[in-house]
Amino acid sequence: MQSSKYPMPQNPTYAYIEAFVEELARAGVRHVVYCPGSRSTPLAYAFAQTPHIRSWLHIDERSAAFFAFGLAKALGETVALFCTSGTAAANFLPAVVEAHLTHIPLLVLTADRPPELRDCGAPQAIDQNRLFGIHTKWYMDVALPEASNAALRYVRTLASRAAAQTLAVPAGPIHLNLPFREPLTQDPQPANPLPPLAQREPTAWQGRADQFPYVTVQDAPLGPLPESTILALAKRLQRRERGLIVVGPNPPAGLAEALLPLASRLGYPMLADPLSQMRCAHIDHQNVLSSYDAFLRLRSFAERYEPEVVLRFGPMPTAKPFLLYMQRYAECEQVVIDSQNDWHDPTQLVSTMLHTDPLAFCRDLLHALPEPLATDTTPWLSAWRQADMLTRQTLLTSIEDFTATFEGRVFTELSELLPEDATLFVGNSMPVRDLDTFFWCQRKAIRVLGNRGANGIDGIISSALGASAATSTTSKKTPIVLVIGDLSFFHDLNGLLAARLHQLDLTIVLINNDGGGIFSFLPQAATPEHFEELFGTPTGLDFAPVIQMYGGHHTFALDWGAFRQEIATGLTQGGLRVVEVRSERASNVTMHRQLWQAVEKALGSLP
Amino acid sequence: MQSSKYPMPQNPTYAYIEAFVEELARAGVRHVVYCPGSRSTPLAYAFAQTPHIRSWLHIDERSAAFFAFGLAKALGETVALFCTSGTAAANFLPAVVEAHLTHIPLLVLTADRPPELRDCGAPQAIDQNRLFGIHTKWYMDVALPEASNAALRYVRTLASRAAAQTLAVPAGPIHLNLPFREPLTQDPQPANPLPPLAQREPTAWQGRADQFPYVTVQDAPLGPLPESTILALAKRLQRRERGLIVVGPNPPAGLAEALLPLASRLGYPMLADPLSQMRCAHIDHQNVLSSYDAFLRLRSFAERYEPEVVLRFGPMPTAKPFLLYMQRYAECEQVVIDSQNDWHDPTQLVSTMLHTDPLAFCRDLLHALPEPLATDTTPWLSAWRQADMLTRQTLLTSIEDFTATFEGRVFTELSELLPEDATLFVGNSMPVRDLDTFFWCQRKAIRVLGNRGANGIDGIISSALGASAATSTTSKKTPIVLVIGDLSFFHDLNGLLAARLHQLDLTIVLINNDGGGIFSFLPQAATPEHFEELFGTPTGLDFAPVIQMYGGHHTFALDWGAFRQEIATGLTQGGLRVVEVRSERASNVTMHRQLWQAVEKALGSLP
Repeated sequence: MQSSKYPMPQNPTYAYIEAFVEELARAGVRHVVYCPGSRSTPLAYAFAQTPHIRSWLHIDERSAAFFAFGLAKALGETVALFCTSGTAAANFLPAVVEAHLTHIPLLVLTADRPPELRDCGAPQAIDQNRLFGIHTKWYMDVALPEASNAALRYVRTLASRAAAQTLAVPAGPIHLNLPFREPLTQDPQPANPLPPLAQREPTAWQGRADQFPYVTVQDAPLGPLPESTILALAKRLQRRERGLIVVGPNPPAGLAEALLPLASRLGYPMLADPLSQMRCAHIDHQNVLSSYDAFLRLRSFAERYEPEVVLRFGPMPTAKPFLLYMQRYAECEQVVIDSQNDWHDPTQLVSTMLHTDPLAFCRDLLHALPEPLATDTTPWLSAWRQADMLTRQTLLTSIEDFTATFEGRVFTELSELLPEDATLFVGNSMPVRDLDTFFWCQRKAIRVLGNRGANGIDGIISSALGASAATSTTSKKTPIVLVIGDLSFFHDLNGLLAARLHQLDLTIVLINNDGGGIFSFLPQAATPEHFEELFGTPTGLDFAPVIQMYGGHHTFALDWGAFRQEIATGLTQGGLRVVEVRSERASNVTMHRQLWQAVEKALGSLP
Repeated sequence: MQSSKYPMPQNPTYAYIEAFVEELARAGVRHVVYCPGSRSTPLAYAFAQTPHIRSWLHIDERSAAFFAFGLAKALGETVALFCTSGTAAANFLPAVVEAHLTHIPLLVLTADRPPELRDCGAPQAIDQNRLFGIHTKWYMDVALPEASNAALRYVRTLASRAAAQTLAVPAGPIHLNLPFREPLTQDPQPANPLPPLAQREPTAWQGRADQFPYVTVQDAPLGPLPESTILALAKRLQRRERGLIVVGPNPPAGLAEALLPLASRLGYPMLADPLSQMRCAHIDHQNVLSSYDAFLRLRSFAERYEPEVVLRFGPMPTAKPFLLYMQRYAECEQVVIDSQNDWHDPTQLVSTMLHTDPLAFCRDLLHALPEPLATDTTPWLSAWRQADMLTRQTLLTSIEDFTATFEGRVFTELSELLPEDATLFVGNSMPVRDLDTFFWCQRKAIRVLGNRGANGIDGIISSALGASAATSTTSKKTPIVLVIGDLSFFHDLNGLLAARLHQLDLTIVLINNDGGGIFSFLPQAATPEHFEELFGTPTGLDFAPVIQMYGGHHTFALDWGAFRQEIATGLTQGGLRVVEVRSERASNVTMHRQLWQAVEKALGSLP
């Protein structure tokens, strides 16, 4: 239907499903990730024959879904995903949950048996109705294929609507369950021919003229707040010197530019989550702080600096010390601004929840605030800035002294090594926490990505490879580095297949402390009995062979000189390269604690 | 609580959760499979401290769930499974679906955040309510831990009830979602002390006397049918010579013994699915046929032998030719007997659905049927027997002639090689089909297992390792062999970790045709364009390194002599051993088709 190479199909199923796929393309879908299967054959052919959509093969549906997720996340656009019927579809669930929590536009298509083959013992048939429960924002059990004018109008409308729905507020995954009857291949069906040409309505059969979508859908984002709300807030803020601005992970594009003038006008420090894209950008703003994870955990600091008001954008930041700091000051006014109608407040301390366009909010609030009387920095702002600077200096210096391998150093090194426009993907558990503490503002636009919806250790490799696939399709190919712990690396080993199948570039820093390093920081570590079997859980795996199986290159970075060299090689040579940093869970905790003590000491001189 | 080594916990959460786990043990739960995490800490300690329940660590929750599934399936008893909150739990879904469809008693426990940390951006919190949808037979969002008499009675009752529910008709998985508040460790809680000893009701706190369960639950299986139903059926059957008995996968224990006298009395051939446990047992009954997958696909046979009545037990058999044969004779009376209240009829041809105890059914029907007038074999029975015998002989002889590697031969070889009491686990897609055609009645009790609920290619390695774990806990350790294709092997590579962690024995026959071999048998193969990218999907992986990573032994069986030797070694030496048989998808189809032709020719001589 799309390409002159392929004549109009003579099988009603194909007339229907090709119209569906054609409309997805017209709605702007450019990528589909799929796994092989029989029931999904009509989808497979329809996508393969559409020149406007690139098909990405994967084998393991769990990894495939995270790959699609990473692709959609990095591109900021809707990515389709399909598989055959049965437990194949069930494997999509973890990525669907993460997409739902982080508003990633995934269009999940599951092939299914027709109604007469459901719940009656037919092979590869499971109940796929609402298979992902409430973890998709919209679900439809799609009508069986037919080749009538009405059916084609239906399926074209459905495609337009579904693609748009993935992006409408709140953005997120959509699930369409598509039943297919045999025959599943394109063969003409003498018993069920297409209607004669004269009966075919042109728009139903060929779509709108000039490649227009069947339905042009516009979903506006949330609008601005009423003026009265802004003015009242401006009035309150004017009276308060001790304010904070906090930006969580994944803010909307353009927030930095809108927010920085506001931070200047208010004279508030701005705590920028490592995934806020505000630490590493062409942002050189002295209000932006990035070391608060280390100094907010110090009672000496937290007790001394009491905030009056906090303006928080989007999800809670990664740093747990910030959460504890807010709980310490339960009476502090907390205002949350969120563009996706979410409710990010695990503390139940927020008094004002503003569901609005954050850019408009910043602009309007700035407009409502008078120019400051003096441009002098307040003692409050200056204390925070100084704390941030002292913390960073102390950490940098102290890290140099460690003789054992210190995991956090991966990030201080990477902040130097990564070039402009690189992408840094970071695993959950310890890597994202070390990122928070040790990856500082650089005057380089480095995009930092991670899966902070459910914070799972699953699907990280695939998400990063999806992001790599995204960068590979742009005109200017930019390098991408993943930092991941060994348990998380193990969890998604199958994800590495995508690197091999699609010749993707990814440099992986594998921090291998043989088990769950984070537990050594938790109260569980105080009870040595059962600790290793329940929490430490070493696997003792040597990953070199499996990396080799996927055609990847593996090396150990035995010292930081070697680390720098390996990363540099990875960034220039491309391909799949794993740089393994071996560390030791117990000494890693000790070194972290030594650093916090050093910071505490350094901050003793604060005014 | 269980062991004198551990004093009564001073933390209310532990008083509560240890009572829960204690009751599971008293209800007969002997195994728990778990993955590490923080929120699940109370469960982890409570299980670890219970001497009556063995804890099996895994890392990847998807594999862990299939491992628990395989353990429960092979033991025929309830196995518990737990993980932490978040997407960890979502990874359980594929195995839960398979357990639900095949009535495997899994007790799925997911740790969760307490209500105040749900849907408000708290870390690792997803909506776990009904996370598995309708794919568990019972779901409860469990009350928060408390250490009151009422709470302990509640949680003991819940444990008794949940364990019993997994086995009650229809048996299947249960999901309990368990919220925990911090602190998650066992530390005493001065702010929330246990009630004074005098206020503690002994039964609530220590359970029933003499290790009795808190609630002794009895769930009777389905009972027998009314006499009138049996008599009416007996009357109909007496008049019909051309009957068939068909036994699907996973029949209840003891069915063979009950069914064989009935088959003799009726003079009906008995088509025994390869997973019916009736092909390979100390059963030497000439009515049991095992080659029908090959000869029922021949039109010449199917057209000639029209059945009058079919008595079918449990799920549809694996062989698709049987389904097509039934569809050919839509007017044939089909009676289904099912012990789990299931509805196994994807053909909509069944006229009588009997939900009852199949053993009682066989006994009552036998009793209602008169002794046959003559013991002569009817022409109908004799034709089927002869077809079965000729088919087997033809296949055996023709296979010998192949010079290329023929995948089906794996099963003819294994039927010779496997010793008494061995377990054969078989993967889906091609292996189970080749098993059906090429694994014949042996006078050895070989247990044949496979995942025939959703027929997925996922979780097979873990399911087999779960079965291996089951055999390892019995007094007489028996060998276990898994036959699996390369895509399915790839899908659950992570499952191999269990072999390493728990030193399990498993000999794996890896049939590697580099891709999805089954598609070459399907209509998709007729269209070469896109075939490899959509269906063949070769990965080109050399699995030797990854097997080595798990401490396994890998060899190629280059010929059948080597194959026999490697299997023999695996069976005696134990450990994880992979015997790889390389084959070629195209020639494999050709050889299968040659065999069908040879069978057709051989059956030309039938009366």
